[in-house]
Amino acid sequence: MGVVVQNIRRADRSAADAFAKYGVATVHEAQARTGLLAVRIKSIQVGAHISGTAVTVSVPPADNWMIHVAVEQCQEGDVLVVAPTSPSCAGYFGELLATALMARGVRGLVIDAGCRDVAELTRMGFPVWSSAISAQGTVKETLGNVNVPVVCAGASINAGDVVVADDDGVCVVRRGEAERVLKLCREREAKEAKTRERLKAGELGLDIYGMREKLAARGLVYRDATTEPGRER
Amino acid sequence: MGVVVQNIRRADRSAADAFAKYGVATVHEAQARTGLLAVRIKSIQVGAHISGTAVTVSVPPADNWMIHVAVEQCQEGDVLVVAPTSPSCAGYFGELLATALMARGVRGLVIDAGCRDVAELTRMGFPVWSSAISAQGTVKETLGNVNVPVVCAGASINAGDVVVADDDGVCVVRRGEAERVLKLCREREAKEAKTRERLKAGELGLDIYGMREKLAARGLVYRDATTEPGRER
Amino acid sequence: MGVVVQNIRRADRSAADAFAKYGVATVHEAQARTGLLAVRIKSIQVGAHISGTAVTVSVPPADNWMIHVAVEQCQEGDVLVVAPTSPSCAGYFGELLATALMARGVRGLVIDAGCRDVAELTRMGFPVWSSAISAQGTVKETLGNVNVPVVCAGASINAGDVVVADDDGVCVVRRGEAERVLKLCREREAKEAKTRERLKAGELGLDIYGMREKLAARGLVYRDATTEPGRER
Amino acid sequence: MGVVVQNIRRADRSAADAFAKYGVATVHEAQARTGLLAVRIKSIQVGAHISGTAVTVSVPPADNWMIHVAVEQCQEGDVLVVAPTSPSCAGYFGELLATALMARGVRGLVIDAGCRDVAELTRMGFPVWSSAISAQGTVKETLGNVNVPVVCAGASINAGDVVVADDDGVCVVRRGEAERVLKLCREREAKEAKTRERLKAGELGLDIYGMREKLAARGLVYRDATTEPGRER
Amino acid sequence: MGVVVQNIRRADRSAADAFAKYGVATVHEAQARTGLLAVRIKSIQVGAHISGTAVTVSVPPADNWMIHVAVEQCQEGDVLVVAPTSPSCAGYFGELLATALMARGVRGLVIDAGCRDVAELTRMGFPVWSSAISAQGTVKETLGNVNVPVVCAGASINAGDVVVADDDGVCVVRRGEAERVLKLCREREAKEAKTRERLKAGELGLDIYGMREKLAARGLVYRDATTEPGRER
Amino acid sequence: MGVVVQNIRRADRSAADAFAKYGVATVHEAQARTGLLAVRIKSIQVGAHISGTAVTVSVPPADNWMIHVAVEQCQEGDVLVVAPTSPSCAGYFGELLATALMARGVRGLVIDAGCRDVAELTRMGFPVWSSAISAQGTVKETLGNVNVPVVCAGASINAGDVVVADDDGVCVVRRGEAERVLKLCREREAKEAKTRERLKAGELGLDIYGMREKLAARGLVYRDATTEPGRER
Repeated sequence: MGVVVQNIRRADRSAADAFAKYGVATVHEAQARTGLLAVRIKSIQVGAHISGTAVTVSVPPADNWMIHVAVEQCQEGDVLVVAPTSPSCAGYFGELLATALMARGVRGLVIDAGCRDVAELTRMGFPVWSSAISAQGTVKETLGNVNVPVVCAGASINAGDVVVADDDGVCVVRRGEAERVLKLCREREAKEAKTRERLKAGELGLDIYGMREKLAARGLVYRDATTEPGRER
Repeated sequence: MGVVVQNIRRADRSAADAFAKYGVATVHEAQARTGLLAVRIKSIQVGAHISGTAVTVSVPPADNWMIHVAVEQCQEGDVLVVAPTSPSCAGYFGELLATALMARGVRGLVIDAGCRDVAELTRMGFPVWSSAISAQGTVKETLGNVNVPVVCAGASINAGDVVVADDDGVCVVRRGEAERVLKLCREREAKEAKTRERLKAGELGLDIYGMREKLAARGLVYRDATTEPGRER
Repeated sequence: MGVVVQNIRRADRSAADAFAKYGVATVHEAQARTGLLAVRIKSIQVGAHISGTAVTVSVPPADNWMIHVAVEQCQEGDVLVVAPTSPSCAGYFGELLATALMARGVRGLVIDAGCRDVAELTRMGFPVWSSAISAQGTVKETLGNVNVPVVCAGASINAGDVVVADDDGVCVVRRGEAERVLKLCREREAKEAKTRERLKAGELGLDIYGMREKLAARGLVYRDATTEPGRER
Repeated sequence: MGVVVQNIRRADRSAADAFAKYGVATVHEAQARTGLLAVRIKSIQVGAHISGTAVTVSVPPADNWMIHVAVEQCQEGDVLVVAPTSPSCAGYFGELLATALMARGVRGLVIDAGCRDVAELTRMGFPVWSSAISAQGTVKETLGNVNVPVVCAGASINAGDVVVADDDGVCVVRRGEAERVLKLCREREAKEAKTRERLKAGELGLDIYGMREKLAARGLVYRDATTEPGRER
Repeated sequence: MGVVVQNIRRADRSAADAFAKYGVATVHEAQARTGLLAVRIKSIQVGAHISGTAVTVSVPPADNWMIHVAVEQCQEGDVLVVAPTSPSCAGYFGELLATALMARGVRGLVIDAGCRDVAELTRMGFPVWSSAISAQGTVKETLGNVNVPVVCAGASINAGDVVVADDDGVCVVRRGEAERVLKLCREREAKEAKTRERLKAGELGLDIYGMREKLAARGLVYRDATTEPGRER
Repeated sequence: MGVVVQNIRRADRSAADAFAKYGVATVHEAQARTGLLAVRIKSIQVGAHISGTAVTVSVPPADNWMIHVAVEQCQEGDVLVVAPTSPSCAGYFGELLATALMARGVRGLVIDAGCRDVAELTRMGFPVWSSAISAQGTVKETLGNVNVPVVCAGASINAGDVVVADDDGVCVVRRGEAERVLKLCREREAKEAKTRERLKAGELGLDIYGMREKLAARGLVYRDATTEPGRER
C-alpha cells in the first residue's frame, strides 16, 4: 500500500523499440497467443502504433494521484500502464499529464479506465489506449503503487516488460522474452510475406496451407445448390 | 455439420450492385423496417459503403477454419457474412484473408465477431463490419457450414441475399426481393429529395407532413413559459 | 403528457456561445465536477466542439414524433437535447431532421438514443452526440414533451441551460450559472497554461503541485529494485 | 460540495406507507409511466416489497463516507437513496450500515452502485436494491451531499419523495403527488381485479379492451396456414 | 406488416411434451449444438422447466399490442415466443396477460425483452424467460405479426417448433425434427447415466473417454512442482 | 502450451478451511482490499460459502478439454479455478464434471466463463461461481495448462492459493499469506462484533468512528430545510 519501486530493470532498449515494426496481432501470435489485453482497451486515435517498456501504476478507483507520482519514474522509451484496483471509467488522464510524460520521452499511455482531453491529446500526438473516454475528474486522496506487478485489462504486466499497441489493441511481452519473441515476429512476417504474394496471385489458402485433406478427414461435405435445390434452405 | 453449398443462386448482379447508391437507413425503411443487423456490428473504417451478394459462413467460437473454406466459394461482387454458433469476440479475420478475398473480387466482410489488422485492412481498402476488434488468434479444428442460412447479429441471412453496409450498419435484402426493394429505395430517395429542399428553405416538417391536426387530436398542449413561469420547472 | 413549453428563457447568448472555447473537461471541473452526461454519449464525428442553449425533448421509446414538434421551438444557437422515457437505441434522427435544424441555426444534437445517416450528417457538418448509431426506423404515434426538465444520460437538463460538447462528451451548465462558470473556466485555463509551460520545461507535477509532503505523510515508500531485487515481483 | 440538508419535508407518512400495497408496475402506470429507475437496479433478495420516504445521498465514486453522515438524517419509514456522482460498482454498503439503519427504522436501501454482505443482509431482513453486488471496499476521503436532489439510475429523486420497490425494480413518486397517485393506484387495482376475473374465465383481452376494430382499421390480416401453406414460412 | 397466421401446424403433442424431461443442455447437445437462444434470456424464477409448441410474435419496440392478438392463437401446450423488431427492455408482459394465457393452457413465455409483475407471476406459477425485468409500460399503437418466423435472441424460431426451457436457458427444436431429437436425448441420457455412475465411483473422465493418448499426441507435458520448483511460477 | 504441473504446494489445509468462516468482504478488507475477482463472477446458487486451495486451469475459448485433465490433479479441499485465454460464455462445465470433482472432495468451481446444468448442480449441492450460465457445448480440441499462474476475472491466482467464495463473489489469498490474513480476519470480526452491538443500540457511526471532526475540517455544512426552504431544491 503505497510503494514506488525505482530503478526497475527494463527490457533491452533496441528490442523494445523494434517491436513497433510489428502489429499487435503478429506479436500475440509469435508468443503463442498470449499477452493480449482485453478488447475494451481501444486506441483513442486512428493509426497510432508504438512499443516501449512498461512503467506500471496501480491506482484506486477515480483517484489519479499515483499517476503524478509515476511520471517521475518514467524515462525515454517507456509506456505508462495504469490499472485501477477496482473498475472505473473516470477520466484519470488528460493533456497536462501527457505534457509531463512527453517531456520525459514517454511513448504513450495504456489505461484500463478513462482518459479525457481527447482532441488535445490527438493534436499533441500523444497516443492513448483506454477503456473509456470521460471528462469525469478524479481526486488525489489515496495511495497506490508504482512498478509493482499489475493485472491490466486481464493481462498480467510487470514493470520493464515490453508493451506493443496499435489499432488492434495492446499486447505485453515479458522482459526476459523480448529478444526471443522479436525473432519469432521477424520469422512470422517473412513467412506471411510469401503467403501474401501467393494469395494476391489468386492461390487459395486451402491449397497453400494444405487444408483439404484434413477437412475431408473431418467429414466436410460439398453439395450443389443447383442440383439439390431443396438443400439450399 | 460440415456442409459447403456450392453454386448458390445469387440476387441479380446489377440489382445487388445498385443498392450501394442507397444508405442502409433507406434500404431498411424501403422494406418496411426489416433486415437490419444489431447495432453491435460497426464499420472498422469511416465512410465505407458497399453492397453485394452474401456468401454465408457459420463458424464455431474462436475457430476460423471455415472462412478459409468459404474463400473458394466467393466470386466478384460477393460480401462474406460470418456468424459464430456461439458468441465470440476473437479475431477471426485479418489482412491475409482479406488479400485472398480481394483477389476474388469480394466487396467486404460482415462478421458478428472480431477482426484484426485494422490498420492494414484500411490501407488495403478492404471494408469490414464487425462486432469487435481483437488481435486474439483463432484455431482451425472444428467444421462449420458455408452457404447455409445463418442468423448474423440477430438478422436471418441466406446465401445469395443482398447485403448493404455503410456507416450506419448493415441491412440484408432477400434475394427474391432485391428488384422490388430497389425500386422502393429509388422512390423514397426521390420523395426525400423534395422534402429536403423544402426543409432547407425553412418549411417545417410539422407542415410538410401535415402533423398538426393529429397532434392536436392526441391532446398536445402548448404553454408559454413567460406567462406561466411556474410551469417551466 | 404532451406539453410543449414555448418562449423558454435561455442562458445569455454570448455566455452560451463563449463556452465553445472551453473543453468539456474544463467546464466540468470549473463547476465542481458536476453536469457530465454518461460516457455512453459519444460524438459520431471526430473533432466536433459546440456550445449552445438546450431545447429539451422527452420522447417515448422508438418514437420520434416529438422531435418534429421540437424543431419549431428551436432558434439560432440552440442545441437539441433528446431523452427517451425508457431506453432505446433506435435511430430517431437523420439527415432530414438535421436539414430542418440547420435551417434554424441549431448547433447540434445530443440524444440518449440512436441516430442514423452518419455519413450524410458528417458531410453536412451537423454535429451529433448519441448513445448509439442505428438505422432502425421509429414511429410517430405517441406524444412526449418539449422544454420540460429531462434526465438525459444521467444528467438533469432544463430548457435554456447551456450544453457544451466535444470529443470527451457532453456537459450541462445551469442557465443561472452560465456567467459564473464561464469565469471559472477562464481562470482555470489561465492557470493551466502556466502549469503546462512548466511541465513542458520538465518540471514535475509532484513539485509544481507540492505533493511530496502529503504523499510522505500518507506513508508512501520508495524502494530500489536493484538493491532489493526480491521486492520487484 | 459537502451539504447536509436537515429537517426535510417528507411525504405524508400514511400515504408513503400505503404504497407498499401496490406493485412498482402499478405505481409507474398510475402516474402516467414516469418515475421508474433503470433496470440495472435490482433487488438482492427475492420477494422484498417496501415503500417509504427518500433520504437522498450524493456520493463520490468508491467513497461511502457520506452514507455514514446520512444515517443520522434518517428516521422511521425512510428509504435511503444513494447515487454516485460517477459510475461505480464498489461495495458502498454492508451489514454494519444496515444495522445502523435498522436501528432507526429505515425500510431499505436503493443504491446505483454495489452493496456487499448479501447473505447477512438477507438474514437480517434488510432489503436492498442495487446495481451491483461487490465486496470491493470504499474509502472515506471526499465529501458529498445529503438530501439534495439526485439523479439515481436515470430518475430524478428529491428528499422526502416516496420510493416504492419490489421484485420489478424501483419507482419514485413526487412528495406532492403522493396522495393523488395513491388514489390512482387504488382505482387501477380495482379495475384490474375485474379484468383479471374475466380473463380467468377465458374472455379475451381483444374483446374486453375492444381492440378488434382498431386492429382491423390499422390493417391487421388473418391468414390460414392450412389453406395457404406457402405463407407459413 | 400486420399478419396473423392461424391454424399453424404444431409439432406432435406427445413429443413436444416429452422434451420437458430433458434439460436444455441435453437437447442442445442432442441436436448437434444448435438451437440455443442467447444467454441474455434468463428464467425469472428458480427451477422452472417446460417444453411446448411455439406461438411466435414479432412486436415493435415497447409496444405489446400484438401479444394481446397472439393470446387468441394459443392453445393447450403452447409456449408464447415474443421477439421485438428492435431491441427493447420494456415490460411487455405482466400478470394479466399471464392470466389470459393460463386460461388457455399455455405453458410459459419466452421474450427477448422485459417482463413485469415478477412476484405475482411467481405466485401464479407462470414461468417466464426474458432478457429483462422492467416495470416500464408499453403502448398499443403499431401492428406486428403472429406465427411468422422470428429470430428470438439470436435463434430462428418458427410457429409450431418445440421450445424447451429450464434454468440453463432456452432451446428450440424444429417441428420436423422433434421425434428424431427426442430419441437422441433419450440415448444421451442413458449413456450419461452410465458415465455418471463410473465418475461417482471415482473413475476419471480421462480414462472413461480414453483421452490420454490424444492428449499425449498433442504434446501435453506433465511436470512436477516439487522437483522443478522454479517452474511453478 | 500444454503443461500440467503436478504435486503443487498448497496453502496449509486448516488455514484454507478456516477462511470459510469469514465472508469474502471480510477477507478482502483484511488483506488491504486486494484479491477480489471481478463482479461478473456470481454464484449460481443462493447461500453457498466455501474456501479451499486453488487448482488452476487455463483453457482455450469454448474448449473444456483441460478441465477433464485438471480433475486428476484435484484433491480433498481444493477449489477448481478456470480461466479462458480469451473471453467465452460457453458452458464449459456441467453435472458430470461436478460428479467427478465431488468424488475427489473438491469444494466448488470458480470459472470466468459459462456453466450449465444449474438445476442439477444445485440439487447435488456443488457450488459454482461463474460469469455466465449457458447450455452451449464446448469442444475438446486444443491444449491448455493446469496449475500455472492464471488471471481469472481480473485477479492473479496461483495454484495452491486460497480461494474464498460466497454470495458477494470470490477473493483469492496468496498461499504464503494465508495464516497472516486469517489472523487479520479474526481481529476484524471481533472488532466489528463490538461495533455492531453499539450500532444496534442506536449509536451512530459518526460517533463510534469519530468522524465529525474530520468532516467539519473538510467543510461539511449543515442546513435546515425548514428555515431555508429555497435551498431544498
